[in-house]
Order: sequence, then C-alpha cells, then structure tokens
Amino acid sequence: MTQLFRPGGRSATMLRPIRLTPGYVGTAEGSVLIEAGNTRVLCNATIEAGVPGWMRNSGRGWVTAEYGMLPRATLTRTARESERGKVGGRTHEIQRLIGRSLRAVVDMKALGERTVILDCDVLQADGGTRTAAISGACVALAIALDKLVLAGTLKASPLKQMVAATSVGIVDGHVLLDLAYEEDSRATVDMNVVMLADGGLVETQATAEKDSYSRSELNAMLDLAEAGIREMLVLQTEALKAGTAV
Amino acid sequence: MTQLFRPGGRSATMLRPIRLTPGYVGTAEGSVLIEAGNTRVLCNATIEAGVPGWMRNSGRGWVTAEYGMLPRATLTRTARESERGKVGGRTHEIQRLIGRSLRAVVDMKALGERTVILDCDVLQADGGTRTAAISGACVALAIALDKLVLAGTLKASPLKQMVAATSVGIVDGHVLLDLAYEEDSRATVDMNVVMLADGGLVETQATAEKDSYSRSELNAMLDLAEAGIREMLVLQTEALKAGTAV
Amino acid sequence: MTQLFRPGGRSATMLRPIRLTPGYVGTAEGSVLIEAGNTRVLCNATIEAGVPGWMRNSGRGWVTAEYGMLPRATLTRTARESERGKVGGRTHEIQRLIGRSLRAVVDMKALGERTVILDCDVLQADGGTRTAAISGACVALAIALDKLVLAGTLKASPLKQMVAATSVGIVDGHVLLDLAYEEDSRATVDMNVVMLADGGLVETQATAEKDSYSRSELNAMLDLAEAGIREMLVLQTEALKAGTAV
Amino acid sequence: MTQLFRPGGRSATMLRPIRLTPGYVGTAEGSVLIEAGNTRVLCNATIEAGVPGWMRNSGRGWVTAEYGMLPRATLTRTARESERGKVGGRTHEIQRLIGRSLRAVVDMKALGERTVILDCDVLQADGGTRTAAISGACVALAIALDKLVLAGTLKASPLKQMVAATSVGIVDGHVLLDLAYEEDSRATVDMNVVMLADGGLVETQATAEKDSYSRSELNAMLDLAEAGIREMLVLQTEALKAGTAV
Amino acid sequence: MTQLFRPGGRSATMLRPIRLTPGYVGTAEGSVLIEAGNTRVLCNATIEAGVPGWMRNSGRGWVTAEYGMLPRATLTRTARESERGKVGGRTHEIQRLIGRSLRAVVDMKALGERTVILDCDVLQADGGTRTAAISGACVALAIALDKLVLAGTLKASPLKQMVAATSVGIVDGHVLLDLAYEEDSRATVDMNVVMLADGGLVETQATAEKDSYSRSELNAMLDLAEAGIREMLVLQTEALKAGTAV
Amino acid sequence: MTQLFRPGGRSATMLRPIRLTPGYVGTAEGSVLIEAGNTRVLCNATIEAGVPGWMRNSGRGWVTAEYGMLPRATLTRTARESERGKVGGRTHEIQRLIGRSLRAVVDMKALGERTVILDCDVLQADGGTRTAAISGACVALAIALDKLVLAGTLKASPLKQMVAATSVGIVDGHVLLDLAYEEDSRATVDMNVVMLADGGLVETQATAEKDSYSRSELNAMLDLAEAGIREMLVLQTEALKAGTAV
Repeated sequence: MTQLFRPGGRSATMLRPIRLTPGYVGTAEGSVLIEAGNTRVLCNATIEAGVPGWMRNSGRGWVTAEYGMLPRATLTRTARESERGKVGGRTHEIQRLIGRSLRAVVDMKALGERTVILDCDVLQADGGTRTAAISGACVALAIALDKLVLAGTLKASPLKQMVAATSVGIVDGHVLLDLAYEEDSRATVDMNVVMLADGGLVETQATAEKDSYSRSELNAMLDLAEAGIREMLVLQTEALKAGTAV
Repeated sequence: MTQLFRPGGRSATMLRPIRLTPGYVGTAEGSVLIEAGNTRVLCNATIEAGVPGWMRNSGRGWVTAEYGMLPRATLTRTARESERGKVGGRTHEIQRLIGRSLRAVVDMKALGERTVILDCDVLQADGGTRTAAISGACVALAIALDKLVLAGTLKASPLKQMVAATSVGIVDGHVLLDLAYEEDSRATVDMNVVMLADGGLVETQATAEKDSYSRSELNAMLDLAEAGIREMLVLQTEALKAGTAV
Repeated sequence: MTQLFRPGGRSATMLRPIRLTPGYVGTAEGSVLIEAGNTRVLCNATIEAGVPGWMRNSGRGWVTAEYGMLPRATLTRTARESERGKVGGRTHEIQRLIGRSLRAVVDMKALGERTVILDCDVLQADGGTRTAAISGACVALAIALDKLVLAGTLKASPLKQMVAATSVGIVDGHVLLDLAYEEDSRATVDMNVVMLADGGLVETQATAEKDSYSRSELNAMLDLAEAGIREMLVLQTEALKAGTAV
Repeated sequence: MTQLFRPGGRSATMLRPIRLTPGYVGTAEGSVLIEAGNTRVLCNATIEAGVPGWMRNSGRGWVTAEYGMLPRATLTRTARESERGKVGGRTHEIQRLIGRSLRAVVDMKALGERTVILDCDVLQADGGTRTAAISGACVALAIALDKLVLAGTLKASPLKQMVAATSVGIVDGHVLLDLAYEEDSRATVDMNVVMLADGGLVETQATAEKDSYSRSELNAMLDLAEAGIREMLVLQTEALKAGTAV
Repeated sequence: MTQLFRPGGRSATMLRPIRLTPGYVGTAEGSVLIEAGNTRVLCNATIEAGVPGWMRNSGRGWVTAEYGMLPRATLTRTARESERGKVGGRTHEIQRLIGRSLRAVVDMKALGERTVILDCDVLQADGGTRTAAISGACVALAIALDKLVLAGTLKASPLKQMVAATSVGIVDGHVLLDLAYEEDSRATVDMNVVMLADGGLVETQATAEKDSYSRSELNAMLDLAEAGIREMLVLQTEALKAGTAV
Repeated sequence: MTQLFRPGGRSATMLRPIRLTPGYVGTAEGSVLIEAGNTRVLCNATIEAGVPGWMRNSGRGWVTAEYGMLPRATLTRTARESERGKVGGRTHEIQRLIGRSLRAVVDMKALGERTVILDCDVLQADGGTRTAAISGACVALAIALDKLVLAGTLKASPLKQMVAATSVGIVDGHVLLDLAYEEDSRATVDMNVVMLADGGLVETQATAEKDSYSRSELNAMLDLAEAGIREMLVLQTEALKAGTAV
C-alpha cells in the first residue's frame, strides 16, 4: 500500500469542502447550487399538477429526476445528448438512482396527485456528481415543498426526512471518502451510498471494474460513507435554515 | 411478520429450478438458454475483431452486453424499443451491469484487440432476469472463448474464473433468495449480488423503494446471496462440461 | 442445369421438417414456436382492448404484426434496431406482409373493437422466416381467439379459416420448395405465397434480382407453393388440436 | 358484377393518359416528370462515385431508390416523415421495390464502382405512384447513364434494356388496368407488375385485403398488366428520343 | 469594384423572371408553383380544424409553415431529412421565417380555431428559395381562405393584405436585387426583406459572413428590396385574378 | 403611447446591469458567465484539433456554437431536448446566429485547421439570451485563443476584433434597449443587432409578429442598439483585462 496523498491535504475520511447555495436561480420552485470541491451541480425542483398516466386516480404523487451535464463540465468536451438525439446509458442510470433516492423521503399520499421533477445539471464535474445531485436535490425538494405549505396548498410538507449521499472507494489500498475524479479513475472499487437522516439505508451500490472486494472491505466503505453522509445531513439542514432566512 | 409461503413450496433459502441449455442456437459462437423457474433468457456471445475507437492500439480487448425483452415476455405486452426509437433507462442500467460483471472475469490483454458482445434476450420474464442474464452470459462467454482456443487463435482462454449472480430481497419481513416477479413486486428491499468463483464481490446493489434497510439486514441478504451464487457456480460448471460433451 | 443436391437429402418438392410448439411462453394469450429446419420463430398473440384512432367507433377490430430478429439469429451478428433507433426497411416490409395475411382470415365485425398484435421474433434464421412467421402467427392467433370464446367474451371465434405461407424459388434452374438460407442466397427468383385453407390466394410475391422469370416459371412456382402450403395447413391443424389437448 | 364505369370513360384495359417530361429539373443528371392521369411523380437520377461499404473493391456498381410524398400530394395532408423523425413502413416497402426493379436492368460490372440514386417524389397522388415511379425512374436512369457515355466516362451505357411497371386490380368483379386512387381503395385485389422490354418478369405482387383470388384471376391480371407495360415501354422510348432531341 | 455582369443580362435592380402558377396541384385547398428564374417552389396551403394545444379555447387561429427541399433540387444531391431522422437547422430557421411572415397578414380572430399549414417544397433551387416561398405561400393562402368564403364557412377572408419577400445583397461591391445561387455564394452581405402591401416591414434580416456592412449599405439594400417587393406584390395580385378566372 | 415604466427604474436607453465573470468553470479553455439583469448564460469555448469534413485540407479553421437552456431557466419548466430526442427550431436558429457572429471576428487562416466550439448554456432566462450569448461567447473565445498564444501554439491571436450584440424593440410605442422577458413578450417589434468593435454591422434582424414597422422605426432601433453595443464592448474589454489579471 502506497502512502496516501490527497489533493488539498485531505485525510482519507474527510469530505471535500461543501457549499450549498439555496435560491441559485429565481425561476424554480426550489433551487440549490451544490459544490463539493470542484464539482458543481445545479439542482432545481419543479412541482407540476398531475401524475404519469399509470398513476392517475391513485390519489398519490410522484417524484422523478433528470440529470444532465454541460458539454464543458468535463476537461474534454462531451457532445450534447440533444445533438446525439438520445439520452445515454450513464445518464439513465444516474437519473433513475436520483429519482429512487428522493422518492424514499416523500409521503406520496400527502403530496397528492402532483409530480416533482428534480433537474440536476452538472456545471463542472470533478467526481461524485450523482451523490452531490442527490444531496442537493433533497434541499431543492424541501424548499419547493415548503413553498406549497406557505402558499396554503398543503397543510404540512410531505417530506418525511432528509436524504443524502456520498461516494467511497478503494484507491491504492486506501478506503477513501468522497472521491474526486482523479481518485475515482484510479479506484479499484467505487461505492455510492444513499442514507436517510434516521440512518436507514436507501441505496448501496459497490462496483469493482478492476478487482473484486471482500465483505470486510465492503463494511469499511459503508462505515466511512455513513460518517460522511451524517456530515452532509448537517450541512443540508443549515442550508435550509439559511435559505428560509432569505 | 407473516408466515412465509413461496410458490412451489420453496423455502426462503432455495433457488428456483435452474436449467442451462448450452448451444441453444447454432448461429452464435457461444449460446446458452438459462431458465430460472419461469424466467427464460437466451444468452449469445459474439466475438468480433477490433475494439471501440477509444481503445484502439491498446492491445487490449473489450467485453460489452446488450439486453432486450421480447414484447410478450411479460404478462401485459411491452412496446418494442425499436418501435419507440430509443433504448429505455431500465435496459441501459441492466446492460451496463451485465457488461461490468463480465469484464471482471476476462483477461483483456490475453483477449487481444477483440470485442465480445453478450446478447441477453428475455423470452419469458418472471423476476431476476438481470442476474439470470449474468449467470447465463458467463457460460456463453466461456463457450465462445473455448472455441477461440480450439481454433488455435488463442493459446489459452482469457477467462480468469466464472462469475454468477442472484437476487435477494426482503418480503413481508422475510429475507428471500432468488425472487420471482410476484415476490419482487412486493419486496421492500431488492438486492442484486454478483460474485466471482473465488468469492470476491463484483457488484452489490441494494435498493429500497418502500422502506429503508439496516446494516444487519444488508448482511443477512449478502449471506443468502453468496450461498445462492455458489450453487449457481456449480450448475454453470456442469453445463459447460455437458456442453463440451456435445 | 446442374444436378440437384439439397441439404438433408430433401427433394425439390419437400418442406423442411416442421415443428409447431403451442404454448411456448405462458405469458401470452396465444404462443407458438414454429421451427422449419433451422429457422425458429416465436409467434405470440396479444389481444388488447380498443383499435387505432382512425378506426374508432367503427365497431370493427384490427390485426397487426411486428417482426424482429435477435442479433445472433444470423451467422454474423446484426445490430439491434433499438440501438440504431429505427426500424429498417426489410423489417417494415415483412411485418406489413404478416399483418395483411392475418387480416385476411379474421372477421373484424365479429372481433369487435379489439386489436390483435402478432409478435414474430426470429430466434434463429435459416431462410423463410417471413413465411414461417405467417404460418406460426395464424396458430397463435387461433389459440388467442379461442381463449376469448372460452372466457365467454365472444360467442364464436372470429377466425374464418386458417392461412399459411411458404417460399419457393429457382436455384440453378430447379424450382425448389421452402428455401433454406444458402439456397435463397443463390436463387435467381424468390417467391412468397400466402394461401387460405380454401385455396384462395392472399399474397403472391415473386422477385427476380439476378434474372427475370417467365409466366411458365411463375406457374411452376405457384403449383409447388400450393402443395407445400397444403401440407403446412395440416400441420397447423394438428398443432391446434395438440395445444387444446394440453 | 356491376356495370363498369371508369372516370374519363376509360375502358378496363386502357392506361390513363401518360405524359413523360424529360429534363424537368436542370440540376439532376437525369430528370423526368411522369404523369399518369392525376398522379405526378418527379424522378431524378444522381450518379455518385463509390459504392456502399459492403460492396467496396468489388468492381461493381449499385443502384438504389428513395421515394417520398409531398404533404399535400394527397387530399388530406400527410405529416412529413422528416418531422416524424423516421421513414414509414409504406415508404420503405416502395423504395425497396423501385430499387430492385431498376437493378434488374443495369450491368453492374459495366457501371463500375458508382452508385445511382433514383429519387422519386410524388407531387400529386392519384393511385399507382410506385409503378409510375418505376417507369419514370428508368427514363431518368437512361438519361443519366447516357450522359456518362457522352462525357466519355463510359464507352457504352450499362443499361441492358428498359423496365416498366403498372398496376392492375379487381374492382367490383372487373379486372382493371392502371387503377386510380378511388378504384384502388375499392379493389378486392391489387397487383403490381414490373416487366422488362424483353418480356421477362421482374416483380409480380398480388395482394388481397378484402378477399382472396384464384389462379385464373391472377392470370387475367397478369395478361392485362403485360399489355399495359408494353404500351408504357413504347412511351418511355419516345420520351428518351424527345429528350435527346432537346 | 468590378464591372457588373449578371446572367441573362439582368441589371442590378431587376428581379429574375417570375412565374406564378395557381392550382398547380388539385389536391390542396390552395396551391401555387412559384418560379423565380431557375428557382421553383411548390407552395400548398392546408386548412385544418383546431389549433395547437397551447391556443385551444382562445377563439383564435394559427398559421404555420413547413419547408423542404427535394434531394436533387440542388446541383449535388442533399440527403433527405427523413432519412437522417431530423430536421436540420437551416430548415428550421427558414420555416420559422415563413410562418412569422404569413401570420402577419392573417386576422386570427376572424380565422377562428383553424390551423393553416403552408408547405413550401423546393423542386429546383437557384438562390432565394425562402423569399420565393413567402411570396408563393401568400398566394396559396389567399386561394385557400377564399375557398372558405366561397363555401360559406367564413363571411370574409381573414387575409388582411398581401405579403411578399425578396433577397438583396452586396456582390463585388454592387448592391443587387434577387440573388441567384452563384451570386449569393459570392455575396459579402445577404439580406432578406419581408414587406406588406401597405409598405410596413415584417422582417429584415441582413447577414455578413465575409465582411461587415455599414448603415448606408443597409439602407441601399432596403431601398432596392422595397422596389422589388412592390413588383412581386403586383404579380401576386395578377396571379390571384388569373387563378380565380380558372 | 402609454408612459414608460421599466423594472428597476431603467430608462429606455439603458442596458440592464451587466456582469461578466471570466473563468467561471475551470474545465474549459475559455469560460465566462455573462449576466444581464436576471438573464444568466454560461459561455464556454473549446478548441479542438481538426475541422469538419468539407473543410479538410483547406488550411483554415472553423468556429461553431451550440446553445442550450436548462429546463428551469424559465418560469415554467421546459422539457429537455435530449429527452425529446431532437434539437428544436428555436435552438437551431439561435445557435446558427451565434456561430455566424463569432465567425465574423476570427481570422480562419491564422487559426489553422482547428475548430472552436462555443457552448452557450442558459442557467436563467429573462429575455435577450441570444444576444447575451454572443457577447459572452466572444469573451470566452478571446480567452481561449489567448491561451493558444501563451502556450506558444500560435504566434498571435486570430481574433481580429471584438463582437457584441444586444436586443432592441418597440413596446407600447417606445423604442427600448435590452428587453427583459416581460417587455419582449409585449413588444410589437423585436430586433437583434450584432456589431463589431469597428462599428461594422454583422447581423441585423428585425421581426414584427403583431404589427409592422417603418423605415424610421428601424433606424431608431438601430441607433439605440449601436449605443448599447458600444457599452457592451467596453465591458467585454474590462472583463478580459480582469480575467488576465487572474
């Protein structure tokens, strides 16, 4: 195992500097810019009347997500999916993950026949965009649902609790929290964890492309992820208070 | 917790009856029909010269997968993706999972600049199609690579070891192995595990839509999955021997 | 004219061995696997409520077909139409032919405002897939319509009579019945004939790419096709009886 | 059988008034406007260097066709295929027929590695557009190939002979030549015949949607079609002479 | 500044010979073939009941345009947009311009909830196709709206006045009216002007790709364009009278 | 004419507050966030080796632009073009305008066979996004080209001069500079002007949907636009200096 060196002198168990800017755009019901180091994701929540056809007359709401990346979010330009005429597999995989994670914290009965769309657009990418998107989207969602309460449309927010996410991985034999792109590209194992404020797990996905991992490695990654997510949950709550103050 | 009842009198820790039919079609380099209860997936391996553009002149090979479902694999007909003009998110997610899983067992340097495409087409769906596809595709891959050896193109098979997969989940409070569709649709947690013959984990994905899960539940699911995958690894080896006998 | 040699010692006027397996999948209203030599086509019938917009409130039903080929149905892999994002010309031509052929045997008034979709998917291709699809689809259609009668939804089956099809062609000067792929690729004339149980012709399509044909050659091909289709009609009826027995 | 009445007092065995205008556009290598009654199809031939990938280095040429219909060629407007983002089944079927028919009259070896594209665009549709397109495209093709000879690029035209087409059908029990739209929509059987100048048949397609047809009806239709095509072949030759005169 | 030479001995301030043929196709509610020198555009007007969703129940009508070019309208063949599966940027830009121009002359309240679609298809292109399309489409529109009056559906035509267009540009230092393709490709500035019969401007678009232009050059171009459009307005009116006579 | 009231107490001849933030993302060769009031457009310049096929071996470079809008840049959510599978007409029109405008200021010979892609993505939209995109893209372009000089790849920047743009329009009879969305939606005439630092005009597009405009109105709009663009050109130069300082 080589000695650990992380950019910015970070230790293995530290998150990158996180910044949450509520109200980043004024056009959306809920809006947050989340920055994790150099990763920047704009999360906007839209609430629309009605639900998809297969849910109609169920009295229940729906939450879905879309994920995009600006062409120059990356160091070499990526062609627009609109130009290629189709949404790629990676995009599909990520937006399904975001959607499932956010559905875990909404009381669909209380939401009623409304659809919340969470648009997560990556302005700059440096690893961990999907987990940043989940953490940011939850704040945007909370803001948007609070507005429904403020407007008197709903009596209470259908948000049951907060959800946040982070990535962990094994790089050069070290278990690391919140991988930046350069670390992620060298990782032998890469894991995304989505956890509720009450500690319940919503998604755990651990993937090995270069090597396999053992149960004890999986447990070490989970321990680290849970600690990181707890930090993120605190930051989300602070951002929501700040956002309300404004 | 309600008392457990599974169709066919299966216990919580039993796989459905598995049948592997090597050589199901004669047109492909490697072909297997895998049946797990009423789930039937036809897995065909194709070996083509050359690799995708971004890998050219690396001296290394590539393994990828495509997944499809016949319109009437399901109880209500699903429109063809060719008619809708695009591949859906679920399909993308699944074929990326299959591709990653199979890449874990191939020595790309030994394969050389060749691409293996694993086509996994679901003829009938009753839950667990993606894990059946992985287990079946590995057999089709092994057969196709053996043919390269037989033909004298390669000195030894680039297959490092076998890989197999299964699903586990929590239904009505019971941790169950190898969920059928009806069980899967009622599950509060659904998990797919991909494991190597040497016990190394390649993918673990545990998803909760209706509820969250604890670390101990995650461990119980993993224990069960590992046992199920070990059974599947034995069946794969038997099928390969039978296939060679033919 | 060279001396005739056909694989398997077939004479010019013999069909390949035909096998019809009713109930091949349990998920569809009507399902048949038809095998003609190495050609294998899975035909599934779906009955849906309602008709296309332009037929609404006509009191009449509709029958349509979709045709697909698994990527490794062929000796060299064919890219999926879903990946290419569009249905090709050959597929369109074939599914229109199947649809027209099956509409010829259904009493649309008796069917009422229902749509029958016949999915014909080629698992393995060795020539004659479109004619096999027609012969198989008619059996799947018959089974599905019988279920409507059994369920009491309809008083009698709207199926007026059976329809079947075969290919004929001229290879090395010989008029041959039921061409396999290798024969088809050498044929100077290729013909598909669709005929009703009462002997009425529904479709006759004779195409010359390499050479033209005379009226007498056309008549010879028609004679041979009619004989072959009569055999197929007997096999369909037997399969339906066997299917009912199950 | 009701008494026959055809618009314009035509007898059952008469073509509609045919007009061929060579050189209709000045931009194409070969151009003809063909009018058959109210059906008007603009046929333009393009000769491009090179052949499709699968034919490269074969020393042989290729002939292909594309068919389109202006939105208001029909009495009710048809949406553009460019707007719908895909080419429909009917269009595919027709352009494949035109392509095959024209390939039958070109010596591909003599053409060399060149591709001829025949664009057939319907300005006004009143039945028989695909057969008009074949007859017109052959004239456009002849003009374009003659230019290659005039330019000294080829020593002799690779056109082996002319090809022409017509439709026949059974309407109210009458066998009719060259159906107009209103007749076509009432026909019980509709047949397209493509024939060479030497009398050889290239394509015969007889389709019954409402009823079936007997062998003797098929023969009656073929007799009538052959007579109509012979008339068309004379008109093509006259148009080519007139075109050369210009 | 080089001495001016224009094909056909045209002076800088002359339009090319214009020909308007009303009723070019009999299938459309309004139809005109407009020819400006070698540029030929077929303009067909369709009137459909109803308006796009966002206008429903407004009591107002809508006018829109679609523009297409036959593959061999140009000297080298252009691939069909239907084959490429999407409408290109240039097409979009032009059909939006035509639509806006025509909406300027229709009283949408008087039209009521109807949609007029103006299909402008270029049969042969020699520069100025978009302005020819506007001038032609206005005539087709006038004819179609007059038919609604004749049929008693409307009391008076909702057409408030005529609109016409032309191009101007600067070539080799000369300000020229109505550029042909060869002139257009050498122009340093290219301008399209759309003007009403009462002299009001609807669209002015002046584009410099190779060089910029001054305010005085802009004014010179506008003067010339206005004169040209006045001529076109006279020709439109004559064509409408002739069309009515027929 | 009603009395003029503009949000923020702006006079008719004032631009909205403009802010240019060079280096907004660190991943692109040139990056600027341009804000004009509530309109925010992120402009990133990418320089790639090579040019489109039709320009190869010309020794000349190419400049092109792509324009996008995040779904919640607008008050009601707009569906992603990637989801709809095609780029819309408005997007096409805008990105063609941006591309032409920027090509006017680059010495393509000096650029050599390189392609500059200008990605202009609207984070928040409040009118004037296309003109803001042009003004911002020019700064991003300048930064990116300067880097090529700094890196020693080019001896001097191929940027000949700056280009900027603004919108003007007529609202309630007032000629206004730099329209916000609410003004734009009520405007009877809307004009975009693109001008070089030396005062040469590159694009002038004046459009009337609700009414027409006179030559004197056109001149008044041009006067106002020229003054506004001169202000913008000063701000661009300041931003470039500030950007270099960083």
